[in-house]
Amino acid sequence: MPDKSIAIVGATGAVGRAMLSILTERDFPVGELRLMASARSAGQKIETVWGEVEVEDLSIADPSGIDIALFSAGGGRSREYAPAFADVGAVVIDNSSAFRMDDRVPLVVAGINDHAAATNEGIIANPNCTTMTMLMGVAPLHRAAGLKRMVASSYQAVSGSGKTGVDELSRQTRLLQADEAALNDGTWVDPGGDVYARPIAFNVLPLIGTADPHGYTDEELKLLNETRKILEAPAIEAESTCVRVPVVTGHGTSVALWFERPVAPEEAVRLINEAPGVQVWLDKVPTPLDAAGTDDVLVGRIRPTLDGTGGLNIWTVGDNLRKGAALNAVQIAELLI
Amino acid sequence: MPDKSIAIVGATGAVGRAMLSILTERDFPVGELRLMASARSAGQKIETVWGEVEVEDLSIADPSGIDIALFSAGGGRSREYAPAFADVGAVVIDNSSAFRMDDRVPLVVAGINDHAAATNEGIIANPNCTTMTMLMGVAPLHRAAGLKRMVASSYQAVSGSGKTGVDELSRQTRLLQADEAALNDGTWVDPGGDVYARPIAFNVLPLIGTADPHGYTDEELKLLNETRKILEAPAIEAESTCVRVPVVTGHGTSVALWFERPVAPEEAVRLINEAPGVQVWLDKVPTPLDAAGTDDVLVGRIRPTLDGTGGLNIWTVGDNLRKGAALNAVQIAELLI
Repeated sequence: MPDKSIAIVGATGAVGRAMLSILTERDFPVGELRLMASARSAGQKIETVWGEVEVEDLSIADPSGIDIALFSAGGGRSREYAPAFADVGAVVIDNSSAFRMDDRVPLVVAGINDHAAATNEGIIANPNCTTMTMLMGVAPLHRAAGLKRMVASSYQAVSGSGKTGVDELSRQTRLLQADEAALNDGTWVDPGGDVYARPIAFNVLPLIGTADPHGYTDEELKLLNETRKILEAPAIEAESTCVRVPVVTGHGTSVALWFERPVAPEEAVRLINEAPGVQVWLDKVPTPLDAAGTDDVLVGRIRPTLDGTGGLNIWTVGDNLRKGAALNAVQIAELLI
Repeated sequence: MPDKSIAIVGATGAVGRAMLSILTERDFPVGELRLMASARSAGQKIETVWGEVEVEDLSIADPSGIDIALFSAGGGRSREYAPAFADVGAVVIDNSSAFRMDDRVPLVVAGINDHAAATNEGIIANPNCTTMTMLMGVAPLHRAAGLKRMVASSYQAVSGSGKTGVDELSRQTRLLQADEAALNDGTWVDPGGDVYARPIAFNVLPLIGTADPHGYTDEELKLLNETRKILEAPAIEAESTCVRVPVVTGHGTSVALWFERPVAPEEAVRLINEAPGVQVWLDKVPTPLDAAGTDDVLVGRIRPTLDGTGGLNIWTVGDNLRKGAALNAVQIAELLI
């Protein structure tokens, strides 16, 4: 098959850069590579294995001839530009939440619901990073035993907020670590910040984004709604609380799960290890630092629920920039070729 | 009533030092103050508002005449010495897990089950830090609506492991923050550590202590068993996952709760705010940094469960050294006088 014309939209952001390196690592059949970003970044020249590429201004770029466009430039830009790309024949794989719950748009986790990619009408959505990494561990269990109910609490890394999130953690860490006693007795001085409403260094923030009138954040509702759509199981009940932690990369989730029938931990280990892109760690506990830079989602702490009903408590952790974003987008592109 | 003879056993540890400062802050009626620790710390002289006190070697100290002994020297020392203190007339308030599930030993959270303190036979147990801070938010709801089931995931601070935990976080933070890129791509160099099996800086560890054959840690089973004992409700079901986070002080929990009847968030706010020692934050989200150095447990993110059955998802955070340990021990002592 002929090599493809690939565009990365949002090429200079954290996820865009990860998309480029993953296309390279995976030896993707790139014929032509186009990189697009906001006017501010246009004109930058980026060295790639497919030659030097000059970043184009998205607002004036001509999408003609593009086969696959990987979008990671925020929901606003996706809503504005993705339909035009699709209209001239590109398949847009969109990392934003703009189209995820649109009935005409498949929401695809490679390795879970690959078949859905085929039914696209020009746009395929890449799921939320936390939902996607968590489902890599949960979906194999659902397929075997029918997930009924889950309760998830997340431990989300700052690179999920982009480079500015990483910078804010770094700067606040330097300021606050000078006075450990103050962190203990509450006399710390607020280091200020632009990205998070409260300090993230030496702290956890149990609110990601803003809350709706019922108190839920988008991030929490995505976990429920995207899980139902991806697993094609609208009756699943899910409770979620999303928490930011002072970790650079690697989103963890603590999840309690109940199924149509009891699932023993040994069966769960086997089911997860048989699935692609995910592995169970038995000898040591997988942490965000282990997941960072890794393609596979890691699962550990698989325990029978204490209520004796045959549910499971598990821990999942995955690289939010790779399987949680760029890797899955590239894997969707691989499904298309 | 005459002032009391008070002993602090484990006086040089993080919780012991907090006990001393809380006795001082609360103007506790101390007649005689005795400080005890291991032979290694014996002979140290500590300035207190009740005069300079020389630390005694616990192994040779004579407990005669002590009215109340606050123990925080580890479970082994509690098992070895607490009964002898009780035998000569002291009431031991023990911060370790040694006696918590003993039927003859009340397990008391001041503000929740104060009445239980009166039935002691010489030993009263101080609950687990995570369980205790969480229950400050949960108990007022249980009293009104009957808790049936909960799923809790914790975000626990390193000072819960003592000063060595804080030192390990501090040292590892300095080593790892030098190379942010490595934290992102997984090429970080293991900083090593004595307290935790894996790095805690810029990471979370979803295992606290060691796991039993079913995969549960002591910390997780305490949350179930101590909740049932404190609330005098043996039928409560609780799932728990305990996770260490790179925070100095302040244990958080994300908890999903279901009751005998639906509980609206507005009712929950009122019930919690009417209870002593706990407050709901509505305008900003309470974090570990807010709880550090504070006596009250803070509750936020009170939301109706997404399943529509009238349960609640809530977030609690409390100072693990104060309400989670030393403050509650002193409050139990106050119940005795």
